[in-house]
Amino acid sequence: MAQQKDLDKDYKAAQFGGTLTPGERPALILVDFVMAYLDPASPLYAGVETAVESAARILACARSADIPVIFTNVIYSKGGADGGVFFRKVGALKLFEAGSPHGNFLPELLPDADELIISKQYASAFFGTSLASTLTAMGVDTLIITGLSTSGCVRATALDACQHGFIPLVVRDAVGDRDPRPHNANLFDLQAKYAEVVTEQTILSYLAKIS
Amino acid sequence: MAQQKDLDKDYKAAQFGGTLTPGERPALILVDFVMAYLDPASPLYAGVETAVESAARILACARSADIPVIFTNVIYSKGGADGGVFFRKVGALKLFEAGSPHGNFLPELLPDADELIISKQYASAFFGTSLASTLTAMGVDTLIITGLSTSGCVRATALDACQHGFIPLVVRDAVGDRDPRPHNANLFDLQAKYAEVVTEQTILSYLAKIS
Amino acid sequence: MAQQKDLDKDYKAAQFGGTLTPGERPALILVDFVMAYLDPASPLYAGVETAVESAARILACARSADIPVIFTNVIYSKGGADGGVFFRKVGALKLFEAGSPHGNFLPELLPDADELIISKQYASAFFGTSLASTLTAMGVDTLIITGLSTSGCVRATALDACQHGFIPLVVRDAVGDRDPRPHNANLFDLQAKYAEVVTEQTILSYLAKIS
Amino acid sequence: MAQQKDLDKDYKAAQFGGTLTPGERPALILVDFVMAYLDPASPLYAGVETAVESAARILACARSADIPVIFTNVIYSKGGADGGVFFRKVGALKLFEAGSPHGNFLPELLPDADELIISKQYASAFFGTSLASTLTAMGVDTLIITGLSTSGCVRATALDACQHGFIPLVVRDAVGDRDPRPHNANLFDLQAKYAEVVTEQTILSYLAKIS
Repeated sequence: MAQQKDLDKDYKAAQFGGTLTPGERPALILVDFVMAYLDPASPLYAGVETAVESAARILACARSADIPVIFTNVIYSKGGADGGVFFRKVGALKLFEAGSPHGNFLPELLPDADELIISKQYASAFFGTSLASTLTAMGVDTLIITGLSTSGCVRATALDACQHGFIPLVVRDAVGDRDPRPHNANLFDLQAKYAEVVTEQTILSYLAKIS
Repeated sequence: MAQQKDLDKDYKAAQFGGTLTPGERPALILVDFVMAYLDPASPLYAGVETAVESAARILACARSADIPVIFTNVIYSKGGADGGVFFRKVGALKLFEAGSPHGNFLPELLPDADELIISKQYASAFFGTSLASTLTAMGVDTLIITGLSTSGCVRATALDACQHGFIPLVVRDAVGDRDPRPHNANLFDLQAKYAEVVTEQTILSYLAKIS
Repeated sequence: MAQQKDLDKDYKAAQFGGTLTPGERPALILVDFVMAYLDPASPLYAGVETAVESAARILACARSADIPVIFTNVIYSKGGADGGVFFRKVGALKLFEAGSPHGNFLPELLPDADELIISKQYASAFFGTSLASTLTAMGVDTLIITGLSTSGCVRATALDACQHGFIPLVVRDAVGDRDPRPHNANLFDLQAKYAEVVTEQTILSYLAKIS
Repeated sequence: MAQQKDLDKDYKAAQFGGTLTPGERPALILVDFVMAYLDPASPLYAGVETAVESAARILACARSADIPVIFTNVIYSKGGADGGVFFRKVGALKLFEAGSPHGNFLPELLPDADELIISKQYASAFFGTSLASTLTAMGVDTLIITGLSTSGCVRATALDACQHGFIPLVVRDAVGDRDPRPHNANLFDLQAKYAEVVTEQTILSYLAKIS
């Protein structure tokens, strides 16, 4: 604990962890809320039910506020040729070959007919997809990020949001991981370098002001 | 310690941490070995002298093996407009405005006249640069990654190497960070999901077989 | 005609139109061979039957040579939010909203079960897709380009192949457009600046040597 | 002439050439206005003096309107390794090796100290650069495009502006090429598919309303 305090102090002296001001045109992204992480029978089951519940509350508010809502999933061709090096590295990605029920969206977090679904092959929702173009063409300036998992697709998406010029708001309560250690370590890095890590309550208040 | 063992076991059950086989056409990248991290008077000073020493030994072998060698630095226009959201988030990036001595390469790790220098604005050496195109046009299949810092530009570069289709070999001894906690946490994530985290000795043996 | 000779001479003096040597690991791409361009009842019908016939012969040889084969189509969400500015500019793109029969592949050029289909939203097959990563991870160095239309998706794909580090071979007989003027003007630009524009016969001979 | 009329009619029936409405936050880009194209002794000399004059008038108005102004040039490392396949294809690109006076900006179109310079290696000003991120982080929605040459870097930049989600306004009077045929053929394609091709006068009026 004392050690953690030192780490914060050291990062502050190094001038990490500045504050990004959220913009006026946010979109919400729900990264990979699919059965593979929530079905206890799946090898990737991560025990992230509370993140799902938080994301569901945020989704409801985002819909009320009428901001763009984007869902991602992961789909590979049979054999994973379109997954390249990533597919070779992570054996679990075979669960996401086209047609697998592991890739289905959760009943609690289903896209509406007019909400965008982006199917990706890599960790970042921006990589190898037209997400950045879509957000830019919509005039979006801020991306509210929820999803799974913190140390994988959430971090990669938040990093790329920052790199592409969008202000990333990572919702601590609505992202989850299989273990608290990588979860917390990655939220630490994100807050220090790329994003604002915020609570669900902060986002609900922010959305209330948008709508 | 027991806890760490459980984490490894849990990741193995989830089928993370597969093994990527290095290819036959590697290149070496030295990410941001610049004065800002090595000058004790700099706010970003990170105490990573041993990573510099390891990288110098790898650089010598890479030159003997005659593989492509690429250096990166970070340069922003005055005011940082080309640094976008990242420049707003991390105050320390002001150290890298054009002309600052903080951005100078280290005397121990200077590019030769025929070695490529890629100036970047973001964490990933691939983002907003022509690095991927250069590697592809050269026929490179594997990227040996050294540099600073593990939790920032090294991780982002290794992630993007994987996403772009190159096998990332992250050299544990030749990457460094200001604190062992983010350093180790990021090496854990990289080995689990995107890269092979290897020792200097493994790389020296690999390069001996290439040349 | 005399004028055209002068143009060639002028370009040669300016040192355009060098020759790229095809590599040893080609892939074949079939860009947007879909019903919209071949069904006489479609507003986009382009009268490009001979390009289809040529592409079918090349496809047969590529399969015999066992090189990677990639098909592209265009799919937009209902309303085209994921088509951004391009969808607003070209009214005809409404034909490619998800589920439309205009987007179906031609009976003469159907993907096999193990051949990759890349669904794109923009002109270039590389833009907003993981195509470059897939080719790099496969070790491909050369892209044989066939498809529709020359002045649109074919040119954009060949330009991006060059920019991404792959040698683009554009097959004159297997690309088509609704009018010979833009068709020829774009082949002229491609040969001058980005690609080798070759005949079907050249490609058949090249593939015979690969297999 | 009659033929050209048919082409327009055919394109209209196919629903090309819709109209994009310029946004409220434009930026101006000046693509590759460098000595290589304006020095009569250069192999790339293109006789495009009137485009320079038009761009200078637009630049003055853009500065009065206080919109972002971005200049591009082309710079390669010695030997052109960072130019990949493009550098191999176009011999003239050797003129842009680092340090060459051919790459100098024109006296009539010099960047101010606070204006961004983007050095690129490929045809598109977006490719392998952080341009899209910079524009997005600035909240830009529209890109006024001037520069050289119409059939090369201007077209590639306008295509990518569209693909990245910005509305491209290509200024007919302020772009130029070595020959009227590729110049006109490319403006035709751009207007049909990706951009609004407008006159200098239209841009001056537009900027007057912004400021």
